[in-house]
Amino acid sequence: MPHSDPAMDDTAIRLGVDALIAAYADCIDEDRLEEWPDFFTEQCRYVIISRTDYAAGLRHGIIYAASQGMLTDRVMALRKANIFEPHHYRHIVGPTRITRADAGVAEVQSNFLAVRIMHDGGTQLFATGRYLDRIDIASRPYRFIERIVVLDSHKIDTLLVIPL
Amino acid sequence: MPHSDPAMDDTAIRLGVDALIAAYADCIDEDRLEEWPDFFTEQCRYVIISRTDYAAGLRHGIIYAASQGMLTDRVMALRKANIFEPHHYRHIVGPTRITRADAGVAEVQSNFLAVRIMHDGGTQLFATGRYLDRIDIASRPYRFIERIVVLDSHKIDTLLVIPL
Amino acid sequence: MPHSDPAMDDTAIRLGVDALIAAYADCIDEDRLEEWPDFFTEQCRYVIISRTDYAAGLRHGIIYAASQGMLTDRVMALRKANIFEPHHYRHIVGPTRITRADAGVAEVQSNFLAVRIMHDGGTQLFATGRYLDRIDIASRPYRFIERIVVLDSHKIDTLLVIPL
Repeated sequence: MPHSDPAMDDTAIRLGVDALIAAYADCIDEDRLEEWPDFFTEQCRYVIISRTDYAAGLRHGIIYAASQGMLTDRVMALRKANIFEPHHYRHIVGPTRITRADAGVAEVQSNFLAVRIMHDGGTQLFATGRYLDRIDIASRPYRFIERIVVLDSHKIDTLLVIPL
Repeated sequence: MPHSDPAMDDTAIRLGVDALIAAYADCIDEDRLEEWPDFFTEQCRYVIISRTDYAAGLRHGIIYAASQGMLTDRVMALRKANIFEPHHYRHIVGPTRITRADAGVAEVQSNFLAVRIMHDGGTQLFATGRYLDRIDIASRPYRFIERIVVLDSHKIDTLLVIPL
Repeated sequence: MPHSDPAMDDTAIRLGVDALIAAYADCIDEDRLEEWPDFFTEQCRYVIISRTDYAAGLRHGIIYAASQGMLTDRVMALRKANIFEPHHYRHIVGPTRITRADAGVAEVQSNFLAVRIMHDGGTQLFATGRYLDRIDIASRPYRFIERIVVLDSHKIDTLLVIPL
């Protein structure tokens, strides 16, 4: 069946995954970016990539990081540079789908939409796409081993400063 | 009480319903439309209708199908015709409300927003509305007996090719 | 840990909170505003405030009510006045985060997006922000003791008639 969900009976995993995903969005939207790397395991993979590039088998995308350290560097660079017009995001994340959960790892998908709010109050639909996650559920708190952000549109890179 | 929810204690039903609704959106957004009819029971009802028409008691709407076969025909026509500009949707579905669950049928409501992404990357808010569902929960996987898509706006029909 | 969630094990509370938040949005979007005050406790606090004002420590915001009676008055005024162009909202609420739950009160956060649909069918992204809630979970149905609507943008007040 195309829409069976083998892991869905495990309520505790589902709630833990949902809490992680909601907390991640909150961390970014509330500009607590210094906490952002802690949502990932030490060795990890964070990629932002367009849908067409992802479908073509590319794996490094617009933004790529392979460790918590690289994520931290990114946040520090963003804080220091500070050359862009101030803005923040508001993430709306749809329901999560756990497509697999075993050996301490959950594979999870969710749709998201990010609205961008400029300092002057201007608001626009900024990005939509999918989170494709591999989550370490063997220890608490849950952390992302891999988070691939697949953007629906390829028209976005120059504006992308804050992580999604 | 206007907001009591008699069925909400049944966690298993809730998780199953949520999984169905998330998988349905994913099937459409990822362009696996051939799988779409399988989300419905053999005899079913799929309707897209505007809010005002729905409130006026109309029941056939902009798009109407009464069986899995009609849904399959629709997908085949869509694949063959292929005259429209390529685009896809991204659904963001809000929390589900189970308003009733007995005799093997759950009645469920959820809000949705669909963003449309054109082939050139252009992105716009395409549609918002409510899913009013009757779901067969007597067997697995859960399937829609009825899915009424009530659109908030009536300004949409000519653009509507892909199911919502 | 920045994203631990002490209350998340309690599935019943989580489902009850989710049901309340979904029912609240439905009440507004479906224009059953007369039921809206009943989502709050007798003594309550309902505030709509911009992000910057909230961060600055202001607490009364654009709209303020301190009791069910004040909410009822607001709905009656809105129904009588009726001077604005007819429109309605569609709320999309993201996943809820329960940050605390004890002594009969749950503290809950969620992101939301509200689309505004005008009578002529015109649709636009109207508001985004966060709900910061304190919910009475000691009795059923759950009710809001406090709902602070923190708007991401400050460019909204003149259009704000219907509650969010």
